[in-house]
Amino acid sequence: MKFIQKEHGNGGKQTYELINGLFKPIFGSEILKRGDDSSIFDLASKKIGVTTDSFVVKPYFFKGGDIGKLSVCGTVNDLAVSGLVPKYITASFIIEEGFPIEDLQKIVRSMKEYADIAGVEIVAGDTKVVEKGSCDGIFINTTGFGVCEKEERLPSIEKIKGGQIVIVSGDIGRHGACIYSHSSELGVEEKIESDCAPLNRVINELLKNVEICYMKDLTRGGLATALNEIAQKASVDIYIEEDKVPVSNEVKALCDILGLDSYYLACEGRFVAVINKEDKQKTLEILKKYNKEACEIGWIEDTKEKRVYLKTSFGGTRILDMLYYEMLPRIC
Amino acid sequence: MKFIQKEHGNGGKQTYELINGLFKPIFGSEILKRGDDSSIFDLASKKIGVTTDSFVVKPYFFKGGDIGKLSVCGTVNDLAVSGLVPKYITASFIIEEGFPIEDLQKIVRSMKEYADIAGVEIVAGDTKVVEKGSCDGIFINTTGFGVCEKEERLPSIEKIKGGQIVIVSGDIGRHGACIYSHSSELGVEEKIESDCAPLNRVINELLKNVEICYMKDLTRGGLATALNEIAQKASVDIYIEEDKVPVSNEVKALCDILGLDSYYLACEGRFVAVINKEDKQKTLEILKKYNKEACEIGWIEDTKEKRVYLKTSFGGTRILDMLYYEMLPRIC
Repeated sequence: MKFIQKEHGNGGKQTYELINGLFKPIFGSEILKRGDDSSIFDLASKKIGVTTDSFVVKPYFFKGGDIGKLSVCGTVNDLAVSGLVPKYITASFIIEEGFPIEDLQKIVRSMKEYADIAGVEIVAGDTKVVEKGSCDGIFINTTGFGVCEKEERLPSIEKIKGGQIVIVSGDIGRHGACIYSHSSELGVEEKIESDCAPLNRVINELLKNVEICYMKDLTRGGLATALNEIAQKASVDIYIEEDKVPVSNEVKALCDILGLDSYYLACEGRFVAVINKEDKQKTLEILKKYNKEACEIGWIEDTKEKRVYLKTSFGGTRILDMLYYEMLPRIC
Repeated sequence: MKFIQKEHGNGGKQTYELINGLFKPIFGSEILKRGDDSSIFDLASKKIGVTTDSFVVKPYFFKGGDIGKLSVCGTVNDLAVSGLVPKYITASFIIEEGFPIEDLQKIVRSMKEYADIAGVEIVAGDTKVVEKGSCDGIFINTTGFGVCEKEERLPSIEKIKGGQIVIVSGDIGRHGACIYSHSSELGVEEKIESDCAPLNRVINELLKNVEICYMKDLTRGGLATALNEIAQKASVDIYIEEDKVPVSNEVKALCDILGLDSYYLACEGRFVAVINKEDKQKTLEILKKYNKEACEIGWIEDTKEKRVYLKTSFGGTRILDMLYYEMLPRIC
């Protein structure tokens, strides 16, 4: 078995060998192969969007994915929920000395696989190696850009107003539950499969067929945090019906065991959409083709307290705040 | 004194406070302030370039700069040597739990200062916090993009041919020597000042006035590695005259003490340019306005061995290879 050595990060011969022997053959991008200081390409659209994310998920292999798949999906999804068509991503690695080359290959292949599925090209990269003990295995940054195909179709916080409804694209909390189930400290026997997936295809179909007022993917902080961000920015209140929020039995069971709240568990392949009432049927029709659990979960009110309220199964109402404390910080 | 806590990275309330209380007020970008999943903006040019780099420099404060300044300059310079005008950068942070907030503020202010000097806007960001011991203080990724103002002015490896000359923009090895001088293990008393600086203004002036066939900034692996990359890609040989390569006395002294070779020491504010002989006077005239040490150091030959040769002070010739071993891996 081969391992990453300090010299793999010195910018000299071994870095060159790692890049030409591992990254380039797997990523296979013509733009990347040129190996210039900057990758130059044409963009058809004048309006472009960019997003950046560093991924530090622990463990780096988990049920349903790995840090490579996650790093591609996370960035693709940030672009997609902004109404952009993801086109290009960059990939930058910080690797600990002693990291198994075989694991690196698996991760890089996984990035390529999901880049292909999402239809994005990896156009620039960087590799740094730090001494043993100076980072925890591998960290990946992906920065993505997408183009805006129809400006009037761009979801925008200004489009949110009272009377609109809130839709979720599938059952929530799978990714967070997955990472919790892998934590050896918590001793959970059965691992839960992450929902990690690229969302650009379903979102693209939505944008072509209905008016999406606003969208947000559910990552760190889960559904509760995403809705709070929307309520804050749009200066509205959001009401959610507990009975309607889809949560799988295995996620529910894990929450019961560990005392977690599924509203705060991260997803990596789910989003909420705010739409006008009249678009509900068409929206759910499209969403259900990709995930049967997609459904309406609540509505927007113009009361401007900037709060999220949960209508409980027992007929009560409680405030659903942002995430305050996270037991496991390295969800993504 | 305040310190970074795990909760600063959970995507909830404290992350929100860190972003809105620290990053946004300092970066002050209108695009960033919108706080959307993707930052959307207009680009005047259809042809754009992108580059990504993760910075892990140790120590994160050094004489003449810090990891923040370095992360902006490094990315700006990669774009500039590709012939692009840097426009936008993203900034993504991985921070160790317990990191002093005051140090983070200094670093973020430094990024803003040099982004302003270089004329780039910080348009997207991300922050992850890892447990104490899971990373070494702070790592920063910057991804930058620039536009191509005149396509025919773009330097290109295909423009290199025998008879052209090689110019260096200033004395070499300062950044690498600076980091070595900070390493407590090596016990060097006098710290050397890094050459870390944005190069886009000098390069922009060059591109407007002379034909630059090719450029490369001297980072990891130093002058020797940069020239080897050029020789490989262009299928030419490069001859360098030892007597002509500018190295400061303090860098020379450090190399003598530690047994280092200045040709392999990183720079973060220097580049080499390949130009036609007839453009020499005009090129040096412009370069010397920014750095008096700029000078001609060698020439290109069409012999296609893809090697770099050093003509020594004693009249001999030796091969100058790529960097193979680096004592300190975390130069940038």
